[in-house]
Amino acid sequence: MIIEKGGVTSPSGFSAAGVACGIKKNGKKDLAVVCSDIPATAAGVFTTNVVKGHSLQVTMDHIKCGTARAVVVNSGNANACVGEQGQKDALEITALAARLLGCKQQEVLVNSTGVIGMKLDMQAVRSGIENAVAKLSHDGGHEAEEAIMTTDLVPKEIAVQIELGGKKAVIAGMSKGSGMIHPNMATMIGIITTDASISKELLQKALKEITGHTFNRISVDGDTSVCDMVVALANGKAENEEIKTENSDYLAFKDALNTVCTYLARLVAKDGEGATKLIEVNVKGAPSAETAYKIACAVAKSPLVKTAFFGEDANWGRVITAAGYSGASFDPDKVDIYISGLATCRNGVALAFDEAEAKKLLKEKEIDITIDLKSGDFSDRMWTCDFSYDYVKINGSYRS
Amino acid sequence: MIIEKGGVTSPSGFSAAGVACGIKKNGKKDLAVVCSDIPATAAGVFTTNVVKGHSLQVTMDHIKCGTARAVVVNSGNANACVGEQGQKDALEITALAARLLGCKQQEVLVNSTGVIGMKLDMQAVRSGIENAVAKLSHDGGHEAEEAIMTTDLVPKEIAVQIELGGKKAVIAGMSKGSGMIHPNMATMIGIITTDASISKELLQKALKEITGHTFNRISVDGDTSVCDMVVALANGKAENEEIKTENSDYLAFKDALNTVCTYLARLVAKDGEGATKLIEVNVKGAPSAETAYKIACAVAKSPLVKTAFFGEDANWGRVITAAGYSGASFDPDKVDIYISGLATCRNGVALAFDEAEAKKLLKEKEIDITIDLKSGDFSDRMWTCDFSYDYVKINGSYRS
Repeated sequence: MIIEKGGVTSPSGFSAAGVACGIKKNGKKDLAVVCSDIPATAAGVFTTNVVKGHSLQVTMDHIKCGTARAVVVNSGNANACVGEQGQKDALEITALAARLLGCKQQEVLVNSTGVIGMKLDMQAVRSGIENAVAKLSHDGGHEAEEAIMTTDLVPKEIAVQIELGGKKAVIAGMSKGSGMIHPNMATMIGIITTDASISKELLQKALKEITGHTFNRISVDGDTSVCDMVVALANGKAENEEIKTENSDYLAFKDALNTVCTYLARLVAKDGEGATKLIEVNVKGAPSAETAYKIACAVAKSPLVKTAFFGEDANWGRVITAAGYSGASFDPDKVDIYISGLATCRNGVALAFDEAEAKKLLKEKEIDITIDLKSGDFSDRMWTCDFSYDYVKINGSYRS
Repeated sequence: MIIEKGGVTSPSGFSAAGVACGIKKNGKKDLAVVCSDIPATAAGVFTTNVVKGHSLQVTMDHIKCGTARAVVVNSGNANACVGEQGQKDALEITALAARLLGCKQQEVLVNSTGVIGMKLDMQAVRSGIENAVAKLSHDGGHEAEEAIMTTDLVPKEIAVQIELGGKKAVIAGMSKGSGMIHPNMATMIGIITTDASISKELLQKALKEITGHTFNRISVDGDTSVCDMVVALANGKAENEEIKTENSDYLAFKDALNTVCTYLARLVAKDGEGATKLIEVNVKGAPSAETAYKIACAVAKSPLVKTAFFGEDANWGRVITAAGYSGASFDPDKVDIYISGLATCRNGVALAFDEAEAKKLLKEKEIDITIDLKSGDFSDRMWTCDFSYDYVKINGSYRS
């Protein structure tokens, strides 16, 4: 597997564009189109939030047809909770893009991300789609990524090259997401493109499995958005023999997909709103998978843990506290806690550790918290970020 | 029912004291003793965190004997996760206080609040207990409250007078708690004193029931502490006929206890770390009690909701988002949302509202969020506070 500099247009037969059409008040790019030259096999995972954005609902319907030609995403407005008009607008977006691209309306997927409860400015959106489709280019991936960013500071894209049955294939992806990040099935918006040939069933299976331990294992603030989705488009341009069984090609494909999703998911956590550090929470030695997940999740969500690490304070007491209220059952007298490798607690009891050494470790941009329950073989891992003044600043004035 | 200015020494036969013995580095009061002249019927509710402080564990054991003479509480150190020494220290505290007060060791309850994972400075604690017992006074309630405060800015105490079978009785309470507040059975530290005569069974029943919808309905940061407890001591000095059945006296007692606990619980939320506003989250029209609770809880915990209200931004989209991911099942197309009475969303759809009017309402120190599911008769209510820069500041440097 070779990791390339690239994005959603790195696989053969994909073009993209990103334009500024006036949805964002600051004049930044706000509408992206990603397009496959030919119908691509499509798979998707979507938010489990009971409330769902109107655009997302249209995509959940359209993806049932099994193939897709394009994904249209606007930022700056979530097209959620605006009533019937929201659904009409989402349908109009897909109809317009389909007409311009010469494909079926069902083959266009759509999503919107931004403020909830405001109607889309469809005049802006229409001109945005027209301009973007006119600009579609085989190296427009980066521009498309820029256009789906909201409070993101860092663009998130990657391309990975593998061999499938002697043919070179590429899997690439881009994502956005910085706040309202707490995954449950999917999270944020992720678009994966590949020129590999793979059946719809296996593409969906691989995407769901990989999402489960990548995008579904990040948390910025514990808030699961109403527009979360990850979609994967596979157009077969690599001309490998179609992957129809769980053979070695499938494993290679899944491995590469895992690399793409892991990279993007970590970047979403690291670029969390106001974040100064990426925190990886590892739970091991758990008696069950559920125990490991509950503890990782509680620690990753705890505002007390996240503010302590912002303050570069090795306050492991808050880590064991979060484990304790996670709802998981475990023996607190067996718990060991390490902060970036430094032992701070053994068998549930404080260890004397070098505070200067701890401070040095906590100045790093990436921090590892490991909680060893010493009670079994199950483990889990989540990525989160610290909680800073800037999170409060960004979210105290998001709508204005 | 008459609400009096007062605290835990307002009921007959209770004395208290608070002293500075050197546990807190800043020289503030850090050790409190609350004492009943005669053995009092005792009841308690405790944290459900799997990890429990050593002092708390001793109290959970001692309270089984049914009566108590005194409660000793230190702030500045949680006496948690320090191993066997922690239990020995907690036992020594109760033994020392018992000897000085001339009662059984089992009749002394103890708790500790503050940093986790540091051994108690027992030399300081011993001198603190000696000084506090020597200073015990029938109007020392306020001083005791000061000594249990940690990051609290506002002391939290109240006394309520009722008549039970022709006799005047008083129920009073004090509490502390500002961070690591998310109740589950009990929360923070609360001490309720009363001169009413009531059986242990009914005292426990009333305390548990009232705690359920007062102290267990507040959240500052979603973190359930390892030292949470609320204990109630009833010494019978009011000389009312002992309440042994759920008669009208029991109802009057419960009503007064509810007033005391509601007052204290709201104050804990309002005085949450860094808080500038008290936020009451009301859910009504729910199809089940569980649905109402899950939604109230998710909204009250959401960092996005809490930062929006800090920024005085009527971002109801975050309220419906939190409801949507709460785990409760409901019809989003029926949801109405009001912010301090202002209708912002009807049937899941944005309403046009006057932003200037919203801004004015959000400038108030107390804000009400009402979510009406219009799908049943169940309701719930939680109190929380906004999330400010100061929460991050306070918690980024708590141990140092």
